[in-house]
Amino acid sequence: MPAEFTMKRRVQFAETDMAGVLHFSNYFRYMEEVEHAFWRALGLTVYLREGDPHLSWPRVSATCEYFAPLRFEDELELHLRLTKLGEKSLHYEVEFRRDGEKCALGRISAVCCATEPGAFAPTKIPPEIRRRLEAGVGR
Amino acid sequence: MPAEFTMKRRVQFAETDMAGVLHFSNYFRYMEEVEHAFWRALGLTVYLREGDPHLSWPRVSATCEYFAPLRFEDELELHLRLTKLGEKSLHYEVEFRRDGEKCALGRISAVCCATEPGAFAPTKIPPEIRRRLEAGVGR
Amino acid sequence: MPAEFTMKRRVQFAETDMAGVLHFSNYFRYMEEVEHAFWRALGLTVYLREGDPHLSWPRVSATCEYFAPLRFEDELELHLRLTKLGEKSLHYEVEFRRDGEKCALGRISAVCCATEPGAFAPTKIPPEIRRRLEAGVGR
Amino acid sequence: MPAEFTMKRRVQFAETDMAGVLHFSNYFRYMEEVEHAFWRALGLTVYLREGDPHLSWPRVSATCEYFAPLRFEDELELHLRLTKLGEKSLHYEVEFRRDGEKCALGRISAVCCATEPGAFAPTKIPPEIRRRLEAGVGR
Repeated sequence: MPAEFTMKRRVQFAETDMAGVLHFSNYFRYMEEVEHAFWRALGLTVYLREGDPHLSWPRVSATCEYFAPLRFEDELELHLRLTKLGEKSLHYEVEFRRDGEKCALGRISAVCCATEPGAFAPTKIPPEIRRRLEAGVGR
Repeated sequence: MPAEFTMKRRVQFAETDMAGVLHFSNYFRYMEEVEHAFWRALGLTVYLREGDPHLSWPRVSATCEYFAPLRFEDELELHLRLTKLGEKSLHYEVEFRRDGEKCALGRISAVCCATEPGAFAPTKIPPEIRRRLEAGVGR
Repeated sequence: MPAEFTMKRRVQFAETDMAGVLHFSNYFRYMEEVEHAFWRALGLTVYLREGDPHLSWPRVSATCEYFAPLRFEDELELHLRLTKLGEKSLHYEVEFRRDGEKCALGRISAVCCATEPGAFAPTKIPPEIRRRLEAGVGR
Repeated sequence: MPAEFTMKRRVQFAETDMAGVLHFSNYFRYMEEVEHAFWRALGLTVYLREGDPHLSWPRVSATCEYFAPLRFEDELELHLRLTKLGEKSLHYEVEFRRDGEKCALGRISAVCCATEPGAFAPTKIPPEIRRRLEAGVGR
Protein backbone atom coordinates (compact mmCIF):
# COMPACT_ATOMS: atom_id res chain seq x y z
CA MET A 1 0.00 0.00 0.00
CA PRO A 2 1.63 3.28 -1.08
CA ALA A 3 1.55 6.52 0.90
CA GLU A 4 -0.79 7.90 -1.74
CA PHE A 5 -4.09 6.44 -2.87
CA THR A 6 -5.43 7.22 -6.33
CA MET A 7 -8.87 6.86 -7.89
CA LYS A 8 -10.30 7.89 -11.24
CA ARG A 9 -13.55 9.83 -11.33
CA ARG A 10 -15.47 11.24 -14.28
CA VAL A 11 -17.45 14.49 -13.97
CA GLN A 12 -21.16 13.73 -14.30
CA PHE A 13 -23.80 15.95 -15.92
CA ALA A 14 -25.86 16.46 -12.76
CA GLU A 15 -22.72 17.71 -11.00
CA THR A 16 -22.26 20.62 -13.40
CA ASP A 17 -24.03 23.97 -13.02
CA MET A 18 -25.30 26.58 -15.47
CA ALA A 19 -21.78 28.06 -15.73
CA GLY A 20 -20.87 24.80 -17.48
CA VAL A 21 -18.47 23.50 -14.83
CA LEU A 22 -18.33 21.14 -11.86
CA HIS A 23 -20.09 22.98 -9.02
CA PHE A 24 -17.60 23.97 -6.32
CA SER A 25 -19.54 22.10 -3.59
CA ASN A 26 -19.18 18.80 -5.43
CA TYR A 27 -15.39 18.76 -5.03
CA PHE A 28 -16.05 17.96 -1.36
CA ARG A 29 -18.08 14.92 -2.38
CA TYR A 30 -15.26 13.74 -4.62
CA MET A 31 -12.83 14.08 -1.68
CA GLU A 32 -15.07 11.91 0.45
CA GLU A 33 -15.44 9.33 -2.31
CA VAL A 34 -11.70 8.83 -2.64
CA GLU A 35 -11.39 8.78 1.17
CA HIS A 36 -13.92 5.96 1.40
CA ALA A 37 -12.32 4.07 -1.50
CA PHE A 38 -9.01 4.35 0.40
CA TRP A 39 -10.66 2.84 3.48
CA ARG A 40 -12.07 0.00 1.43
CA ALA A 41 -8.63 -0.63 -0.05
CA LEU A 42 -7.38 -1.01 3.55
CA GLY A 43 -10.16 -3.49 4.32
CA LEU A 44 -12.04 -0.88 6.38
CA THR A 45 -15.28 1.01 6.15
CA VAL A 46 -15.91 4.49 7.51
CA TYR A 47 -19.20 3.49 8.99
CA LEU A 48 -18.84 0.59 11.38
CA ARG A 49 -22.25 -0.59 12.47
CA GLU A 50 -21.27 -3.84 14.14
CA GLY A 51 -19.90 -3.71 17.64
CA ASP A 52 -20.48 -1.21 20.35
CA PRO A 53 -20.15 1.73 19.99
CA HIS A 54 -20.61 2.63 16.34
CA LEU A 55 -17.90 4.84 14.92
CA SER A 56 -18.15 7.67 12.46
CA TRP A 57 -15.88 10.52 11.35
CA PRO A 58 -17.59 13.91 11.45
CA ARG A 59 -15.63 16.70 9.83
CA VAL A 60 -13.97 19.48 11.83
CA SER A 61 -12.92 21.44 8.76
CA ALA A 62 -12.92 21.15 5.00
CA THR A 63 -11.29 23.41 2.44
CA CYS A 64 -10.67 23.50 -1.28
CA GLU A 65 -8.57 25.67 -3.57
CA TYR A 66 -9.64 25.80 -7.20
CA PHE A 67 -7.02 26.29 -9.93
CA ALA A 68 -8.82 25.36 -13.17
CA PRO A 69 -12.48 24.63 -13.98
CA LEU A 70 -13.57 21.03 -14.52
CA ARG A 71 -16.15 20.15 -17.15
CA PHE A 72 -18.66 17.44 -18.01
CA GLU A 73 -17.01 14.11 -18.89
CA ASP A 74 -13.56 15.24 -17.75
CA GLU A 75 -11.80 12.22 -16.31
CA LEU A 76 -9.93 13.11 -13.16
CA GLU A 77 -7.30 11.44 -11.05
CA LEU A 78 -7.93 12.00 -7.37
CA HIS A 79 -4.78 11.64 -5.29
CA LEU A 80 -5.35 11.22 -1.56
CA ARG A 81 -2.60 11.64 1.01
CA LEU A 82 -3.01 11.15 4.74
CA THR A 83 -1.10 14.14 6.12
CA LYS A 84 -1.58 13.57 9.85
CA LEU A 85 -2.97 10.88 12.10
CA GLY A 86 -3.72 12.23 15.58
CA GLU A 87 -4.89 10.36 18.64
CA LYS A 88 -8.53 11.03 17.77
CA SER A 89 -8.26 12.81 14.43
CA LEU A 90 -7.16 12.28 10.86
CA HIS A 91 -6.17 14.83 8.27
CA TYR A 92 -5.84 14.30 4.56
CA GLU A 93 -5.56 16.18 1.32
CA VAL A 94 -6.79 15.37 -2.16
CA GLU A 95 -5.26 16.63 -5.36
CA PHE A 96 -7.49 16.83 -8.44
CA ARG A 97 -5.54 16.14 -11.62
CA ARG A 98 -6.70 16.17 -15.24
CA ASP A 99 -4.13 14.97 -17.76
CA GLY A 100 -1.41 15.69 -15.24
CA GLU A 101 -2.63 19.26 -14.55
CA LYS A 102 -3.31 20.09 -10.90
CA CYS A 103 -6.83 21.57 -11.04
CA ALA A 104 -7.75 21.71 -7.34
CA LEU A 105 -6.42 20.84 -3.88
CA GLY A 106 -8.69 19.95 -0.99
CA ARG A 107 -8.13 19.22 2.69
CA ILE A 108 -10.35 17.56 5.28
CA SER A 109 -9.91 17.08 9.02
CA ALA A 110 -12.15 14.57 10.77
CA VAL A 111 -12.54 13.26 14.31
CA CYS A 112 -13.14 9.67 15.33
CA CYS A 113 -16.46 9.58 17.19
CA ALA A 114 -18.63 7.06 18.93
CA THR A 115 -21.94 7.80 17.30
CA GLU A 116 -25.65 7.48 17.61
CA PRO A 117 -27.74 8.82 14.73
CA GLY A 118 -27.28 12.60 14.89
CA ALA A 119 -24.97 12.56 17.95
CA PHE A 120 -21.21 12.21 18.26
CA ALA A 121 -18.66 11.75 21.06
CA PRO A 122 -14.92 12.02 20.21
CA THR A 123 -12.99 8.86 20.98
CA LYS A 124 -9.52 7.41 20.39
CA ILE A 125 -8.96 5.82 17.01
CA PRO A 126 -9.16 2.05 17.68
CA PRO A 127 -5.74 0.31 17.41
CA GLU A 128 -6.71 -1.93 14.49
CA ILE A 129 -7.92 1.03 12.41
CA ARG A 130 -4.83 3.04 13.36
CA ARG A 131 -2.59 0.14 12.38
CA ARG A 132 -4.17 -0.14 8.95
CA LEU A 133 -4.19 3.61 8.30
CA GLU A 134 -0.50 3.81 9.31
CA ALA A 135 0.30 0.95 6.96
CA GLY A 136 -1.73 2.77 4.33
CA VAL A 137 0.33 5.92 4.61
CA GLY A 138 3.60 4.05 4.32
CA ARG A 139 4.85 4.68 7.81
CA MET B 1 -28.62 47.80 3.94
CA PRO B 2 -26.70 46.56 7.00
CA ALA B 3 -23.13 45.29 6.88
CA GLU B 4 -24.50 41.81 7.50
CA PHE B 5 -27.13 39.97 5.50
CA THR B 6 -29.22 37.27 7.15
CA MET B 7 -31.40 34.49 5.76
CA LYS B 8 -33.26 31.62 7.38
CA ARG B 9 -32.82 28.12 6.00
CA ARG B 10 -34.28 24.83 7.18
CA VAL B 11 -32.32 21.57 6.87
CA GLN B 12 -34.04 19.31 4.34
CA PHE B 13 -34.26 15.51 4.47
CA ALA B 14 -32.33 14.93 1.23
CA GLU B 15 -29.47 17.01 2.62
CA THR B 16 -28.90 14.68 5.57
CA ASP B 17 -26.76 11.55 5.38
CA MET B 18 -26.87 8.16 7.09
CA ALA B 19 -25.10 9.63 10.13
CA GLY B 20 -28.31 11.61 10.68
CA VAL B 21 -26.84 15.07 10.07
CA LEU B 22 -26.50 17.69 7.35
CA HIS B 23 -23.79 16.38 5.01
CA PHE B 24 -20.66 18.53 5.25
CA SER B 25 -20.67 19.31 1.50
CA ASN B 26 -24.11 20.89 1.73
CA TYR B 27 -22.87 23.71 3.96
CA PHE B 28 -21.18 25.10 0.84
CA ARG B 29 -24.52 25.14 -0.96
CA TYR B 30 -26.08 27.03 1.93
CA MET B 31 -23.27 29.60 1.74
CA GLU B 32 -23.96 30.14 -1.92
CA GLU B 33 -27.70 30.43 -1.31
CA VAL B 34 -27.29 33.24 1.19
CA GLU B 35 -24.73 34.90 -1.11
CA HIS B 36 -27.23 34.91 -3.97
CA ALA B 37 -30.04 36.13 -1.72
CA PHE B 38 -27.72 38.98 -0.67
CA TRP B 39 -27.18 39.88 -4.32
CA ARG B 40 -30.90 39.85 -4.97
CA ALA B 41 -31.42 42.13 -1.94
CA LEU B 42 -29.00 44.56 -3.62
CA GLY B 43 -30.95 44.38 -6.89
CA LEU B 44 -28.25 42.25 -8.50
CA THR B 45 -27.91 38.72 -9.80
CA VAL B 46 -24.74 36.67 -9.81
CA TYR B 47 -25.31 35.50 -13.32
CA LEU B 48 -25.67 38.39 -15.74
CA ARG B 49 -26.68 37.07 -19.11
CA GLU B 50 -27.60 40.36 -20.77
CA GLY B 51 -24.84 42.51 -22.12
CA ASP B 52 -21.43 41.56 -23.40
CA PRO B 53 -19.54 39.88 -21.87
CA HIS B 54 -21.44 37.71 -19.39
CA LEU B 55 -20.11 37.76 -15.85
CA SER B 56 -19.81 34.97 -13.38
CA TRP B 57 -17.95 34.44 -10.10
CA PRO B 58 -15.96 31.21 -10.04
CA ARG B 59 -14.55 30.29 -6.66
CA VAL B 60 -10.84 30.48 -5.84
CA SER B 61 -11.22 28.91 -2.43
CA ALA B 62 -13.90 27.68 -0.07
CA THR B 63 -13.59 26.52 3.50
CA CYS B 64 -15.81 25.53 6.38
CA GLU B 65 -15.25 24.85 10.07
CA TYR B 66 -17.85 22.66 11.77
CA PHE B 67 -18.64 23.21 15.46
CA ALA B 68 -21.90 21.33 16.05
CA PRO B 69 -23.91 18.89 13.89
CA LEU B 70 -27.09 20.11 12.19
CA ARG B 71 -30.12 17.88 11.89
CA PHE B 72 -33.25 17.44 9.79
CA GLU B 73 -35.73 20.30 10.23
CA ASP B 74 -33.29 22.47 12.18
CA GLU B 75 -33.98 26.07 11.28
CA LEU B 76 -30.78 28.00 10.80
CA GLU B 77 -29.88 31.64 10.55
CA LEU B 78 -27.20 32.21 7.93
CA HIS B 79 -25.25 35.42 8.54
CA LEU B 80 -23.23 36.64 5.56
CA ARG B 81 -20.51 39.26 5.87
CA LEU B 82 -18.50 40.66 2.96
CA THR B 83 -14.99 40.68 4.44
CA LYS B 84 -13.04 42.07 1.46
CA LEU B 85 -13.80 43.55 -1.91
CA GLY B 86 -10.76 43.48 -4.19
CA GLU B 87 -10.34 44.92 -7.66
CA LYS B 88 -11.41 41.65 -9.23
CA SER B 89 -12.30 39.52 -6.23
CA LEU B 90 -14.74 39.29 -3.36
CA HIS B 91 -14.42 37.48 -0.07
CA TYR B 92 -17.14 36.68 2.38
CA GLU B 93 -17.90 34.54 5.36
CA VAL B 94 -21.09 32.88 6.53
CA GLU B 95 -21.93 32.01 10.10
CA PHE B 96 -24.40 29.18 10.70
CA ARG B 97 -26.50 29.80 13.82
CA ARG B 98 -29.16 27.63 15.43
CA ASP B 99 -31.00 29.25 18.33
CA GLY B 100 -28.11 31.65 18.73
CA GLU B 101 -25.46 28.88 18.80
CA LYS B 102 -22.65 29.22 16.26
CA CYS B 103 -22.63 25.80 14.57
CA ALA B 104 -20.32 26.44 11.61
CA LEU B 105 -18.29 29.16 9.91
CA GLY B 106 -17.60 29.19 6.19
CA ARG B 107 -15.53 31.39 3.88
CA ILE B 108 -15.56 31.79 0.12
CA SER B 109 -13.31 33.77 -2.22
CA ALA B 110 -14.51 34.37 -5.77
CA VAL B 111 -13.19 36.19 -8.82
CA CYS B 112 -15.19 38.33 -11.21
CA CYS B 113 -14.89 36.74 -14.65
CA ALA B 114 -16.08 37.40 -18.14
CA THR B 115 -17.50 34.02 -18.99
CA GLU B 116 -18.49 31.73 -21.78
CA PRO B 117 -20.01 28.37 -20.79
CA GLY B 118 -17.12 26.48 -19.20
CA ALA B 119 -14.52 29.23 -19.68
CA PHE B 120 -13.59 32.20 -17.50
CA ALA B 121 -11.38 35.31 -17.83
CA PRO B 122 -10.77 37.45 -14.71
CA THR B 123 -11.99 41.01 -15.09
CA LYS B 124 -12.49 44.12 -12.94
CA ILE B 125 -15.69 44.23 -10.94
CA PRO B 126 -17.95 46.65 -12.90
CA PRO B 127 -18.45 50.01 -11.10
CA GLU B 128 -22.21 49.60 -10.66
CA ILE B 129 -21.84 46.19 -9.02
CA ARG B 130 -18.98 47.48 -6.85
CA ARG B 131 -21.07 50.46 -5.78
CA ARG B 132 -23.95 48.26 -4.70
CA LEU B 133 -21.76 45.73 -2.91
CA GLU B 134 -19.98 48.55 -1.05
CA ALA B 135 -23.33 50.00 -0.03
CA GLY B 136 -24.31 46.51 1.01
CA VAL B 137 -21.37 46.18 3.36
CA GLY B 138 -22.06 49.46 5.08
CA ARG B 139 -19.03 51.38 3.82
CA MET C 1 -56.40 23.37 6.43
CA PRO C 2 -57.26 23.34 2.73
CA ALA C 3 -57.17 20.23 0.52
CA GLU C 4 -54.14 21.71 -1.18
CA PHE C 5 -50.91 22.84 0.43
CA THR C 6 -48.74 25.45 -1.26
CA MET C 7 -45.13 26.52 -0.78
CA LYS C 8 -42.86 28.90 -2.65
CA ARG C 9 -39.42 27.73 -3.71
CA ARG C 10 -36.73 29.52 -5.67
CA VAL C 11 -34.42 27.64 -8.06
CA GLN C 12 -30.87 27.71 -6.69
CA PHE C 13 -27.65 27.90 -8.70
CA ALA C 14 -26.29 24.52 -7.54
CA GLU C 15 -29.53 22.88 -8.69
CA THR C 16 -29.03 23.92 -12.32
CA ASP C 17 -26.94 21.95 -14.81
CA MET C 18 -24.78 22.92 -17.78
CA ALA C 19 -27.90 23.06 -19.99
CA GLY C 20 -28.88 26.10 -17.90
CA VAL C 21 -31.96 24.58 -16.26
CA LEU C 22 -33.08 22.90 -13.06
CA HIS C 23 -31.74 19.34 -13.28
CA PHE C 24 -34.60 16.84 -13.69
CA SER C 25 -33.59 14.88 -10.58
CA ASN C 26 -34.00 17.94 -8.36
CA TYR C 27 -37.75 18.13 -9.00
CA PHE C 28 -38.03 15.06 -6.76
CA ARG C 29 -36.27 16.92 -3.96
CA TYR C 30 -38.69 19.84 -4.34
CA MET C 31 -41.62 17.39 -4.10
CA GLU C 32 -40.25 16.03 -0.87
CA GLU C 33 -39.65 19.53 0.53
CA VAL C 34 -43.27 20.57 0.02
CA GLU C 35 -44.41 17.21 1.44
CA HIS C 36 -42.43 17.78 4.61
CA ALA C 37 -43.60 21.41 4.88
CA PHE C 38 -47.17 20.05 4.62
CA TRP C 39 -46.46 17.65 7.48
CA ARG C 40 -45.05 20.45 9.59
CA ALA C 41 -48.15 22.55 8.84
CA LEU C 42 -50.18 19.64 10.28
CA GLY C 43 -48.04 19.55 13.41
CA LEU C 44 -46.30 16.37 12.24
CA THR C 45 -42.84 15.32 11.15
CA VAL C 46 -42.05 12.59 8.66
CA TYR C 47 -39.34 11.19 10.83
CA LEU C 48 -40.60 10.27 14.26
CA ARG C 49 -37.69 9.31 16.45
CA GLU C 50 -39.43 9.28 19.81
CA GLY C 51 -41.53 6.27 20.72
CA ASP C 52 -41.21 2.72 19.62
CA PRO C 53 -41.03 1.88 16.75
CA HIS C 54 -39.70 4.74 14.67
CA LEU C 55 -41.70 5.49 11.55
CA SER C 56 -40.52 6.51 8.13
CA TRP C 57 -42.05 6.67 4.67
CA PRO C 58 -39.94 4.96 2.02
CA ARG C 59 -41.07 5.55 -1.54
CA VAL C 60 -42.71 2.86 -3.66
CA SER C 61 -42.78 4.96 -6.80
CA ALA C 62 -41.98 8.48 -7.96
CA THR C 63 -42.67 10.09 -11.30
CA CYS C 64 -42.45 13.49 -12.91
CA GLU C 65 -43.67 14.96 -16.18
CA TYR C 66 -41.80 18.02 -17.42
CA PHE C 67 -43.67 20.67 -19.44
CA ALA C 68 -41.36 23.71 -19.43
CA PRO C 69 -37.76 24.21 -18.28
CA LEU C 70 -37.10 26.01 -15.00
CA ARG C 71 -34.17 28.38 -14.62
CA PHE C 72 -31.94 29.90 -11.95
CA GLU C 73 -33.81 32.28 -9.65
CA ASP C 74 -37.24 31.30 -11.00
CA GLU C 75 -39.68 31.48 -8.12
CA LEU C 76 -42.06 28.54 -8.16
CA GLU C 77 -45.28 27.72 -6.42
CA LEU C 78 -45.40 24.07 -5.42
CA HIS C 79 -48.96 22.81 -5.00
CA LEU C 80 -49.27 19.54 -3.10
CA ARG C 81 -52.44 17.44 -3.13
CA LEU C 82 -52.92 14.22 -1.20
CA THR C 83 -54.64 12.04 -3.79
CA LYS C 84 -55.08 8.84 -1.79
CA LEU C 85 -54.63 7.71 1.78
CA GLY C 86 -54.47 3.91 2.04
CA GLU C 87 -54.27 1.74 5.12
CA LYS C 88 -50.48 1.73 4.99
CA SER C 89 -49.75 4.06 2.07
CA LEU C 90 -50.10 7.65 0.97
CA HIS C 91 -50.12 9.09 -2.50
CA TYR C 92 -49.70 12.68 -3.49
CA GLU C 93 -49.02 14.88 -6.44
CA VAL C 94 -47.17 18.17 -6.76
CA GLU C 95 -47.77 20.77 -9.43
CA PHE C 96 -44.90 23.12 -10.27
CA ARG C 97 -46.19 26.56 -11.26
CA ARG C 98 -44.27 29.64 -12.40
CA ASP C 99 -46.37 32.77 -12.82
CA GLY C 100 -49.44 30.58 -13.11
CA GLU C 101 -47.90 28.33 -15.80
CA LYS C 102 -47.91 24.61 -15.03
CA CYS C 103 -44.28 23.63 -15.65
CA ALA C 104 -44.20 20.10 -14.20
CA LEU C 105 -46.35 17.54 -12.42
CA GLY C 106 -44.93 14.95 -10.02
CA ARG C 107 -46.38 12.02 -8.11
CA ILE C 108 -45.04 10.05 -5.17
CA SER C 109 -46.36 6.94 -3.43
CA ALA C 110 -44.94 6.09 -0.03
CA VAL C 111 -45.52 3.36 2.57
CA CYS C 112 -45.69 3.82 6.32
CA CYS C 113 -42.91 1.71 7.82
CA ALA C 114 -41.56 0.88 11.23
CA THR C 115 -37.91 1.54 10.67
CA GLU C 116 -34.44 0.86 11.89
CA PRO C 117 -31.59 2.61 10.06
CA GLY C 118 -31.53 1.00 6.60
CA ALA C 119 -34.43 -1.42 7.28
CA PHE C 120 -38.18 -1.00 6.88
CA ALA C 121 -41.33 -2.98 7.79
CA PRO C 122 -44.71 -1.80 6.41
CA THR C 123 -47.19 -0.92 9.12
CA LYS C 124 -50.62 0.71 9.45
CA ILE C 125 -50.63 4.49 9.49
CA PRO C 126 -51.13 5.40 13.19
CA PRO C 127 -54.63 6.83 13.92
CA GLU C 128 -53.37 10.26 15.03
CA ILE C 129 -51.32 10.74 11.87
CA ARG C 130 -54.22 9.51 9.72
CA ARG C 131 -56.60 11.90 11.48
CA ARG C 132 -54.35 14.88 10.79
CA LEU C 133 -53.65 13.94 7.18
CA GLU C 134 -57.39 13.47 6.57
CA ALA C 135 -58.06 16.87 8.09
CA GLY C 136 -55.27 18.21 5.91
CA VAL C 137 -56.90 16.96 2.73
CA GLY C 138 -60.25 18.50 3.59
CA ARG C 139 -62.19 15.28 4.11
CA MET D 1 -22.77 -3.85 -28.89
CA PRO D 2 -25.54 -5.70 -27.10
CA ALA D 3 -29.13 -4.48 -26.74
CA GLU D 4 -28.40 -3.88 -23.08
CA PHE D 5 -25.69 -1.71 -21.59
CA THR D 6 -24.41 -2.40 -18.10
CA MET D 7 -22.41 -0.34 -15.64
CA LYS D 8 -21.37 -0.88 -12.04
CA ARG D 9 -21.99 1.85 -9.50
CA ARG D 10 -21.31 1.93 -5.78
CA VAL D 11 -23.62 3.82 -3.38
CA GLN D 12 -21.73 6.78 -1.91
CA PHE D 13 -22.09 8.19 1.60
CA ALA D 14 -23.32 11.63 0.50
CA GLU D 15 -26.10 9.92 -1.48
CA THR D 16 -27.63 8.31 1.59
CA ASP D 17 -30.10 10.06 3.88
CA MET D 18 -30.85 9.90 7.60
CA ALA D 19 -33.03 6.82 7.03
CA GLY D 20 -29.79 5.04 6.15
CA VAL D 21 -30.56 4.39 2.48
CA LEU D 22 -29.92 5.81 -0.98
CA HIS D 23 -32.21 8.84 -1.26
CA PHE D 24 -34.98 8.21 -3.81
CA SER D 25 -34.03 11.26 -5.90
CA ASN D 26 -30.52 9.92 -6.49
CA TYR D 27 -31.80 6.94 -8.48
CA PHE D 28 -32.54 9.42 -11.26
CA ARG D 29 -28.91 10.54 -11.24
CA TYR D 30 -27.76 6.95 -11.51
CA MET D 31 -30.08 6.46 -14.51
CA GLU D 32 -28.52 9.46 -16.23
CA GLU D 33 -25.00 8.25 -15.44
CA VAL D 34 -25.55 4.90 -17.13
CA GLU D 35 -27.27 6.65 -20.05
CA HIS D 36 -24.24 8.86 -20.58
CA ALA D 37 -21.83 5.93 -20.21
CA PHE D 38 -23.90 4.14 -22.90
CA TRP D 39 -23.50 7.15 -25.20
CA ARG D 40 -19.76 7.21 -24.59
CA ALA D 41 -19.60 3.49 -25.39
CA LEU D 42 -21.22 4.35 -28.74
CA GLY D 43 -18.64 7.07 -29.39
CA LEU D 44 -21.21 9.79 -28.65
CA THR D 45 -21.75 12.46 -26.03
CA VAL D 46 -25.11 13.76 -24.91
CA TYR D 47 -23.96 17.32 -25.03
CA LEU D 48 -22.63 18.25 -28.45
CA ARG D 49 -21.04 21.66 -28.28
CA GLU D 50 -19.30 21.68 -31.64
CA GLY D 51 -21.35 22.40 -34.76
CA ASP D 52 -24.52 24.35 -35.13
CA PRO D 53 -26.97 23.94 -33.46
CA HIS D 54 -25.99 22.40 -30.15
CA LEU D 55 -28.07 19.40 -29.14
CA SER D 56 -29.32 18.36 -25.77
CA TRP D 57 -31.89 15.92 -24.46
CA PRO D 58 -34.31 17.46 -21.97
CA ARG D 59 -36.54 15.00 -20.18
CA VAL D 60 -40.27 14.71 -20.87
CA SER D 61 -40.89 12.23 -18.09
CA ALA D 62 -38.99 10.23 -15.51
CA THR D 63 -40.24 7.53 -13.20
CA CYS D 64 -38.87 5.02 -10.75
CA GLU D 65 -40.32 2.05 -8.88
CA TYR D 66 -38.50 1.05 -5.70
CA PHE D 67 -38.47 -2.61 -4.64
CA ALA D 68 -35.73 -2.84 -2.01
CA PRO D 69 -33.67 -0.19 -0.18
CA LEU D 70 -30.05 0.37 -1.22
CA ARG D 71 -27.38 1.14 1.33
CA PHE D 72 -23.96 2.75 1.62
CA GLU D 73 -21.24 0.84 -0.24
CA ASP D 74 -23.73 -1.47 -1.98
CA GLU D 75 -22.34 -2.24 -5.41
CA LEU D 76 -25.06 -2.13 -8.04
CA GLU D 77 -25.33 -3.26 -11.61
CA LEU D 78 -27.26 -0.75 -13.68
CA HIS D 79 -28.82 -2.34 -16.77
CA LEU D 80 -29.92 0.15 -19.44
CA ARG D 81 -32.23 -0.82 -22.28
CA LEU D 82 -33.34 1.52 -25.05
CA THR D 83 -37.05 0.69 -25.31
CA LYS D 84 -38.09 3.07 -28.10
CA LEU D 85 -36.38 5.40 -30.53
CA GLY D 86 -38.84 7.92 -31.99
CA GLU D 87 -38.26 10.51 -34.68
CA LYS D 88 -37.36 13.12 -32.07
CA SER D 89 -37.46 11.15 -28.82
CA LEU D 90 -35.77 8.30 -27.03
CA HIS D 91 -37.07 6.13 -24.23
CA TYR D 92 -35.09 3.88 -22.00
CA GLU D 93 -35.33 1.94 -18.79
CA VAL D 94 -32.74 1.12 -16.16
CA GLU D 95 -32.85 -1.87 -13.86
CA PHE D 96 -31.00 -1.61 -10.54
CA ARG D 97 -29.58 -4.97 -9.48
CA ARG D 98 -27.67 -5.92 -6.33
CA ASP D 99 -26.31 -9.45 -6.29
CA GLY D 100 -28.86 -10.37 -8.95
CA GLU D 101 -31.80 -8.92 -7.00
CA LYS D 102 -33.91 -6.37 -8.88
CA CYS D 103 -34.06 -3.45 -6.43
CA ALA D 104 -35.55 -0.72 -8.64
CA LEU D 105 -36.73 -0.02 -12.16
CA GLY D 106 -36.58 3.44 -13.73
CA ARG D 107 -37.75 4.91 -17.02
CA ILE D 108 -36.84 8.13 -18.78
CA SER D 109 -38.22 9.75 -21.93
CA ALA D 110 -36.19 12.53 -23.54
CA VAL D 111 -36.53 14.72 -26.62
CA CYS D 112 -33.76 15.71 -29.01
CA CYS D 113 -33.51 19.51 -28.92
CA ALA D 114 -31.49 22.20 -30.54
CA THR D 115 -30.42 24.16 -27.51
CA GLU D 116 -29.17 27.46 -26.26
CA PRO D 117 -28.43 27.71 -22.54
CA GLY D 118 -31.84 27.47 -20.87
CA ALA D 119 -33.85 27.17 -24.12
CA PHE D 120 -34.80 24.12 -26.19
CA ALA D 121 -36.41 23.46 -29.59
CA PRO D 122 -37.37 19.86 -30.49
CA THR D 123 -35.60 18.57 -33.57
CA LYS D 124 -35.15 15.28 -35.45
CA ILE D 125 -32.48 12.98 -34.09
CA PRO D 126 -29.52 13.44 -36.49
CA PRO D 127 -28.95 10.37 -38.76
CA GLU D 128 -25.48 9.59 -37.40
CA ILE D 129 -26.70 9.57 -33.80
CA ARG D 130 -29.74 7.49 -34.77
CA ARG D 131 -27.53 5.01 -36.60
CA ARG D 132 -25.30 4.51 -33.59
CA LEU D 133 -28.18 4.26 -31.11
CA GLU D 134 -29.89 1.67 -33.36
CA ALA D 135 -26.68 -0.30 -33.56
CA GLY D 136 -26.43 0.07 -29.79
CA VAL D 137 -29.82 -1.51 -29.22
CA GLY D 138 -29.02 -4.52 -31.40
CA ARG D 139 -31.43 -3.77 -34.24
